[in-house]
Amino acid sequence: MKHDRHPSSRSNHSSVSTPVDTPATVLAGHGGKFHIGRIPVLEIAPAIEGGTLPAKATVGEPFPVRATVFRDGHDAFGATAVLRDPDGREFQRVEMVEVLRGLDRYEAWLCPDRPGAWSFVIEGYSDPYRSWLHDAAIKIAGGQDVELMHLEGAKIFRRIATETNLPAKHARWCEQLATDLQACEKTSFERARSQEVLELLARYPLRDFVSPSRPYPLVVHRELAMCGAWYEIFPRSEGAYFDERAGRWISGTFATAAKRLDGIAKMGFNVVYLTPIHPIGTTNRKGRNNTLTALPGDPGSPYGIGAPEGGHDALHPDLGDFDDFAAFVDRAHELGMEVALDLALQCSPDHPWVHDHPEWFSARADGSIAYAENPPKKYQDIYPLNFDRDPEGIYLAIRDVVQMWIDHGVSLFRVDNPHTKPLAFWQRLLAHFHEKHPEVIFLAEAFTRPAMMRTLGAIGFHQSYTYFTWRLNKHELGDYFQEVARETPHLLRPTFWPTTHDILTPYMTDGGASAFAIRAVLAATGSPTWGIYSGYEFIEKTPRPGFEEQLDNEKYEYKPRNWDAPEAAGMTTLLTMLNRIRRDNAALRQLHQITVHPTTSDDILCFSKHIDGAYTPDGKDSTVIVVVNLDPHHTHESLIHLDLAALRPGGLDLPLAVVDEMSGQEFIWGPVPFVRLDPHTQCAHIMKVKYS
Amino acid sequence: MKHDRHPSSRSNHSSVSTPVDTPATVLAGHGGKFHIGRIPVLEIAPAIEGGTLPAKATVGEPFPVRATVFRDGHDAFGATAVLRDPDGREFQRVEMVEVLRGLDRYEAWLCPDRPGAWSFVIEGYSDPYRSWLHDAAIKIAGGQDVELMHLEGAKIFRRIATETNLPAKHARWCEQLATDLQACEKTSFERARSQEVLELLARYPLRDFVSPSRPYPLVVHRELAMCGAWYEIFPRSEGAYFDERAGRWISGTFATAAKRLDGIAKMGFNVVYLTPIHPIGTTNRKGRNNTLTALPGDPGSPYGIGAPEGGHDALHPDLGDFDDFAAFVDRAHELGMEVALDLALQCSPDHPWVHDHPEWFSARADGSIAYAENPPKKYQDIYPLNFDRDPEGIYLAIRDVVQMWIDHGVSLFRVDNPHTKPLAFWQRLLAHFHEKHPEVIFLAEAFTRPAMMRTLGAIGFHQSYTYFTWRLNKHELGDYFQEVARETPHLLRPTFWPTTHDILTPYMTDGGASAFAIRAVLAATGSPTWGIYSGYEFIEKTPRPGFEEQLDNEKYEYKPRNWDAPEAAGMTTLLTMLNRIRRDNAALRQLHQITVHPTTSDDILCFSKHIDGAYTPDGKDSTVIVVVNLDPHHTHESLIHLDLAALRPGGLDLPLAVVDEMSGQEFIWGPVPFVRLDPHTQCAHIMKVKYS
Repeated sequence: MKHDRHPSSRSNHSSVSTPVDTPATVLAGHGGKFHIGRIPVLEIAPAIEGGTLPAKATVGEPFPVRATVFRDGHDAFGATAVLRDPDGREFQRVEMVEVLRGLDRYEAWLCPDRPGAWSFVIEGYSDPYRSWLHDAAIKIAGGQDVELMHLEGAKIFRRIATETNLPAKHARWCEQLATDLQACEKTSFERARSQEVLELLARYPLRDFVSPSRPYPLVVHRELAMCGAWYEIFPRSEGAYFDERAGRWISGTFATAAKRLDGIAKMGFNVVYLTPIHPIGTTNRKGRNNTLTALPGDPGSPYGIGAPEGGHDALHPDLGDFDDFAAFVDRAHELGMEVALDLALQCSPDHPWVHDHPEWFSARADGSIAYAENPPKKYQDIYPLNFDRDPEGIYLAIRDVVQMWIDHGVSLFRVDNPHTKPLAFWQRLLAHFHEKHPEVIFLAEAFTRPAMMRTLGAIGFHQSYTYFTWRLNKHELGDYFQEVARETPHLLRPTFWPTTHDILTPYMTDGGASAFAIRAVLAATGSPTWGIYSGYEFIEKTPRPGFEEQLDNEKYEYKPRNWDAPEAAGMTTLLTMLNRIRRDNAALRQLHQITVHPTTSDDILCFSKHIDGAYTPDGKDSTVIVVVNLDPHHTHESLIHLDLAALRPGGLDLPLAVVDEMSGQEFIWGPVPFVRLDPHTQCAHIMKVKYS
Repeated sequence: MKHDRHPSSRSNHSSVSTPVDTPATVLAGHGGKFHIGRIPVLEIAPAIEGGTLPAKATVGEPFPVRATVFRDGHDAFGATAVLRDPDGREFQRVEMVEVLRGLDRYEAWLCPDRPGAWSFVIEGYSDPYRSWLHDAAIKIAGGQDVELMHLEGAKIFRRIATETNLPAKHARWCEQLATDLQACEKTSFERARSQEVLELLARYPLRDFVSPSRPYPLVVHRELAMCGAWYEIFPRSEGAYFDERAGRWISGTFATAAKRLDGIAKMGFNVVYLTPIHPIGTTNRKGRNNTLTALPGDPGSPYGIGAPEGGHDALHPDLGDFDDFAAFVDRAHELGMEVALDLALQCSPDHPWVHDHPEWFSARADGSIAYAENPPKKYQDIYPLNFDRDPEGIYLAIRDVVQMWIDHGVSLFRVDNPHTKPLAFWQRLLAHFHEKHPEVIFLAEAFTRPAMMRTLGAIGFHQSYTYFTWRLNKHELGDYFQEVARETPHLLRPTFWPTTHDILTPYMTDGGASAFAIRAVLAATGSPTWGIYSGYEFIEKTPRPGFEEQLDNEKYEYKPRNWDAPEAAGMTTLLTMLNRIRRDNAALRQLHQITVHPTTSDDILCFSKHIDGAYTPDGKDSTVIVVVNLDPHHTHESLIHLDLAALRPGGLDLPLAVVDEMSGQEFIWGPVPFVRLDPHTQCAHIMKVKYS
């Protein structure tokens, strides 16, 4: 019995092929053979595919680099992480510290200051001073080789004086110390291991056998690629109304939608994301609630792109013209917001490309163009592009489309279902725009399996939607927050959305206003980029029966909302507050540094975020402890076992003075504070640690 | 407050360096930018340092390759692993199967047939047949697009007939099927998804968009690099005797030691390993039991290498001359054994190199040569080489030494403490001998931290001593067996030694004969290479007080043993039996395929090993289940929850007929067999699964 999975089947039809790669070309293809350094440096991270793709970093955000560093024998050694800017110049140099004792794993944090193609190198080195100090301390204390050890010390200090970049004053001091050591002067050894010397050497190290790794590439993006507050709207809904006299709906326009921008900006969002704004097909147009037949007046799904009026490069005539669009974009910019546009690469049967480029679509055996289907399901209102039939033609057309919207002021693209198009296409397209418009950001809307999501990030997407929406309980959330911050941040920058126009989870439906508040707090604090879909303010929570999405989905109909109505459950206030808290606390605007703290209640999640004062606007450390009651129905109490060592590198002194950024209340916390949270009044604490 | 570990300290003394690497050269150093394939293939394993060092494989042993493979959209895809021989020709081609559902992780097993620099490639591809079949099966069953799906099928089968290497007969059959599908002939669809077609396509696949990874390097060594039974002796002890009349010890010689070879061969060992055979220094020579002063007649440690008679390239005069050594080697070869020699790169103060090449040693500040020390400990009988002072000179000298012993018939080197010498030195030396003498095997005696041990393997050592000796309880052993087999086999081939001349654990001291039996069984079955230190037959278990090594350590004195005495506790019989069982069961002679099975007793360990009949001498599957009572004092009983799916890929049918290769007893086992093992009579079962 043989099995597929099994070691088996030496093939018998393949032994006469021509040679392809010899050992030398195999290793050449990997950048040459690895020559181990005098002080070995291996297993460097972050590295994607062995460093053949750049890892992600963000302007102003420190990120960790790690390496396995060790040496032969007993002598002292160290490792230095060196960050190089896009011109190849050394920008930063940080001594690494061992983070996994016994496993020789070292870490340092680096921080680039501008976008571009950076790199980093890890240098292993031998440390003659510490090697000497280790032996000398033991031997001199034991009265063994006392004179000899002083002599050896003199040699070291002469080297420090002459071989490092020590300022003249310090060099003279070291020379004198060398002379005193040589003379076995009584205090000389104590001086040689003084704090002063250690601090001097930290700045002007004496290093032997410096063994640099090859450089590892980094792609550095601007801050908005990592940290932002998005707000999604269907522009046609804003200002739409039912004309009773005419008995039909009148679409909103860019002009009416622009009026909503003030409200969005007031809540503190800095990206306004527009679902597609192009002409919509009429052939097989979907009706309300995703019904197969549209009734007269149904506007159709904006994702059914393309009509005689134009395709991806055109505006839906109901919305206005390019001047109106420009005015909308200008108003957003005036309010400090950027505009994101949906990039949904699919066509309605009425799209001009269907007529002009039938070769861009799949032909069925009967000659007809294939609509989208996942048998037995059919999507006859959509023709997917077939990227394999004329890759060059399609690439150039889409590149032109993207360029056009950039030229019209769009600076972010929310890419619809990128995982249904070839990754090689995306890699090429994104490389083009990274080069030409490094400021433009692409968000991958890929709700799919982990490998695809990671790889879309690896090949160039700046951000990705995530599984956050379906992570509900304490352990799922804690694990996931740490996963996106620690395991994959070099691949995929997360964005957290409590709902989208496609997703309304049973948790939200069931939990109502409290659930909406809880998930808003988690999204706003758990990830530096979060997003809200319009209508969240009104706790729109009724699903289409049998589906986890909104009833009367805005995709298929106009959905004007009365923004002048009193807010529901204080949600507008909460969203505004969350963006304000994010603005005031730099810890919440970075991705990497998060710690989950044990709690005694399974309904209470506690995590903290931190960033060092070297990277904050006010120069002060920023530390925030978030405590959330995950149960939208009941009050819960919990003790929190604060992980003080992890809360801030180096730890925190107790008691801790904290202020709840939501309520303004101040507390003094010991190591195991008690919390009680009522989801109907305040579902969370967002505690800012007060440093004196 | 700032902390070392912390993101901090943009250096202010480093901003004026010259550029080193621009983005283009950074990526060039990694073998160029990674271009994602049409069907993405990523995260390929085994790969060391991104494939810049070759992963290990062994002639005749299947090993797994893995990759993350996925695609855009819903169409079917697959992945093929291709093994290429040292000439770059395709040698084997195996379809990969998904091993982690939902994580897109694929695996195939490959097996090289000769030593050398091989490589492998993973090809992702689109599968048009399975894409069609998936849709057609659903749609035809649902009466949807029936004619169209037949037409699409006709196109596929025409492609199969013309685009694959199908033999003419099968091609005609496919053509006919295409015609029938085109005509929507009634049985044509059933035929198109018949077992016959699936088997045909397995051999002659129709693949679109084949997307090969870059090649990944493999170094393939001969079988003895992975699987062997070593036996360690001090040649001078064999035949040594105390001359009562002269009142002094007379050393054994190569001639007297050669007499012992029959006994070693009879036990089934195939490597005889000699501790150093060179002249021994007299300056600061160590006495018995590692005392600081040798008494007259104390032979000194063979690791104190070098005397006026010569150094690493000389023979200790007491042992004989090169003719005697040749005779010894010849006799070993006659008996089917190879000879391993200790390579201990250190010198006694009397070594010729100390006189001829003082620059190869460390000079202290007072001008004297530095002896070995780890303060406050001193080892004044040893001068370590300083590889940094004249790396080229030392390299050439040691290369000559190794070459000389190879020329004298040594084919394996047990390298003493390689982790105290620079890894760059080893990488260069081993590369030289891999090229010049690919048959010669180097075993690293590095009992040190994991990173160093893994890296010694990565840069060229064929084998390594391991932590086996200190893994004692059920969970430690089970985890460790799986770790060496599954996590690091491409880096480090393990060898398991129950004791060495340096190591006698308290478990052995305390457990006596039963412990010796238990550890022999574990070593012989847990790893394809195991080793026994001479005297194991006599249960030599008395430690030097305060140390975990033998009292009257053979390093410092002659230790003749009376091989004619009756064997103790049947140990010779057991060692012989274990080597016989290893010879009879191919499963025990491979590294990768091991499974630990849950047991109800913490004192009973159960694991199994397996290899497919495609790779065994007799062409039959080999499966062995080992059950060991780890308690040397008491009888224990246990149920074993056999993991039937893991025992053999594809699973095993119950009941299982097994025969205990130790006792000859046969059993019929259900899924949860019961065992009872008395360490004083039989500490283990080594169950061979009988296939009908």
